[in-house]
Amino acid sequence: MSETIRDVIMIGSGPSSLSAAIYTTREDIDTVVYEKGAIGGLAAITDLVDNYPGFPEGIEGLTLAGQLEKQAERFGAHIEFGEVSAIRHEGDIKIVTVDGVDVQAKTVLIATGSDYNKIGVPGEAELYGRGVHYCATCDGAFYREKRLVVVGGGNSAIQESIYLTRFSTHIDLLVRSTIKASEVLQRELQKFIDEGKITVHLATTTQEIVAVGGKVTSVKATVAGKPVSFETDGVFIFVGLKPNTQFLEGSGIELDERGLIKTDRKLQTNIAGIFASGDVRSGATTQIASAVGEGAHAAMSIREYLDDQELIQSAI
Amino acid sequence: MSETIRDVIMIGSGPSSLSAAIYTTREDIDTVVYEKGAIGGLAAITDLVDNYPGFPEGIEGLTLAGQLEKQAERFGAHIEFGEVSAIRHEGDIKIVTVDGVDVQAKTVLIATGSDYNKIGVPGEAELYGRGVHYCATCDGAFYREKRLVVVGGGNSAIQESIYLTRFSTHIDLLVRSTIKASEVLQRELQKFIDEGKITVHLATTTQEIVAVGGKVTSVKATVAGKPVSFETDGVFIFVGLKPNTQFLEGSGIELDERGLIKTDRKLQTNIAGIFASGDVRSGATTQIASAVGEGAHAAMSIREYLDDQELIQSAI
Repeated sequence: MSETIRDVIMIGSGPSSLSAAIYTTREDIDTVVYEKGAIGGLAAITDLVDNYPGFPEGIEGLTLAGQLEKQAERFGAHIEFGEVSAIRHEGDIKIVTVDGVDVQAKTVLIATGSDYNKIGVPGEAELYGRGVHYCATCDGAFYREKRLVVVGGGNSAIQESIYLTRFSTHIDLLVRSTIKASEVLQRELQKFIDEGKITVHLATTTQEIVAVGGKVTSVKATVAGKPVSFETDGVFIFVGLKPNTQFLEGSGIELDERGLIKTDRKLQTNIAGIFASGDVRSGATTQIASAVGEGAHAAMSIREYLDDQELIQSAI
Repeated sequence: MSETIRDVIMIGSGPSSLSAAIYTTREDIDTVVYEKGAIGGLAAITDLVDNYPGFPEGIEGLTLAGQLEKQAERFGAHIEFGEVSAIRHEGDIKIVTVDGVDVQAKTVLIATGSDYNKIGVPGEAELYGRGVHYCATCDGAFYREKRLVVVGGGNSAIQESIYLTRFSTHIDLLVRSTIKASEVLQRELQKFIDEGKITVHLATTTQEIVAVGGKVTSVKATVAGKPVSFETDGVFIFVGLKPNTQFLEGSGIELDERGLIKTDRKLQTNIAGIFASGDVRSGATTQIASAVGEGAHAAMSIREYLDDQELIQSAI
């Protein structure tokens, strides 16, 4: 085990974590950020971020991620590559296992985000952010007066399809088996079916997303083994969200029924000194703006916690 | 009364409101923003915003405010000048009185912010953001290895003075009468007094903030009528925060003991369809990053509310 006790270890390097690091390091709180993959989280692989406040014409996701990283590093954040496999605590000290090595800290911020579940068909990964999307609030507005295909049959697929009719002229909804949504949503869906805005295709398995010259043109699927094809300008996939909280098994940190981390008003988990912000947090909005705001908020709670600990120490 | 019923009326045009407007208008939710003073709120009169995530070298407050406005207007926000004097509701319809005229809306977002209380001495207004500050988290880091004067004697003045010792070599704390802070804070303060980092001056009334060539050089004060002077590089004033909620008197909207608006997890007030975000909200952090995140969050709650209302209407 390393002998150094860091002030704060942040897990994940998406917008929420980098924003928190801007705040903590600017106040000389010793901060290390661990990232197992690419710096910037989901933001970094987003083509155009149109709604992060401050950039009137939008900003490329990769550029925004780079700017957040630069800003955090300007104030002294250490960003290191390493995979966290466990968190535990001994008294007030938190112990984080990074690539098999234990590292100690007074506080931890978990900002590992969530991943959208994939359907795993050709074209899906290659066209991500350029015709293939997982967030209607983020990217729906790019499809004004366009045709769309939506994949999924649960509550969120129905809800987001209805939302996307604000922009899209027509939506083909591809449902692998049957619709599994609340009755009220199904009734609402029926209105859009009646108006000819949404067409539902049951027992339809998506097979491939086809692009010509880098632009999505159609989706290939099968119905009872027979091939079908849907012309479209874009594809939205809603088959669930997977919070990156597997490494918390056995940590004692409370999750909600979807596996997201529960926090209080200070963004603190049920374990004092361990905080969570961004898309991994129960109640998160999956928006960069909110992730950033929560990062700043968490940083201020971390400072308060550290100050309080110091007070307690000096009183002993 | 105007016959039109807007989807949402936003009150105030600071970062929180403009961010909310970016979100609502991008989704074709009819949005009008009323501003009684200058667009951009406190952000617009901040010299350099160093910690809003996305701008590695910081950004001028006025520039950031302009960019937020441009982004909101790009998606179709209507920003109008007008002072809101009252909000009431008749059934589901909200009625907002703007310059004496009643305007109707399905939802309202209150994002009127808070103002820092002023001490009203020469130099205070003129040097705001350039040597005179009201937020230690925002501007403390500009005073590494510098001398500071802090004005105030309550909990926040003591707490923020202690915080500022992270950066400042020495702080003169000017207290008009006597210190009115919690015992634990007073004990903590004593440590910094003993270390020679903070010097407390009781019964000391601040009279003037003096600058030479636009740079703060000293603070003039009186002790029992006798003039004294303190050399300094900057002044932080902590004499309270005044939430802009006076116009809510009689509205039935619940405030906390400091006059800030209480909200639930969706940022909704106790009145359905009326939301609050940013510095006017109880629990706010007075940070642009958080105000922006809350704006996005509030916008998504507003959309959900409007969708639900539509469902209810169509079911009748």
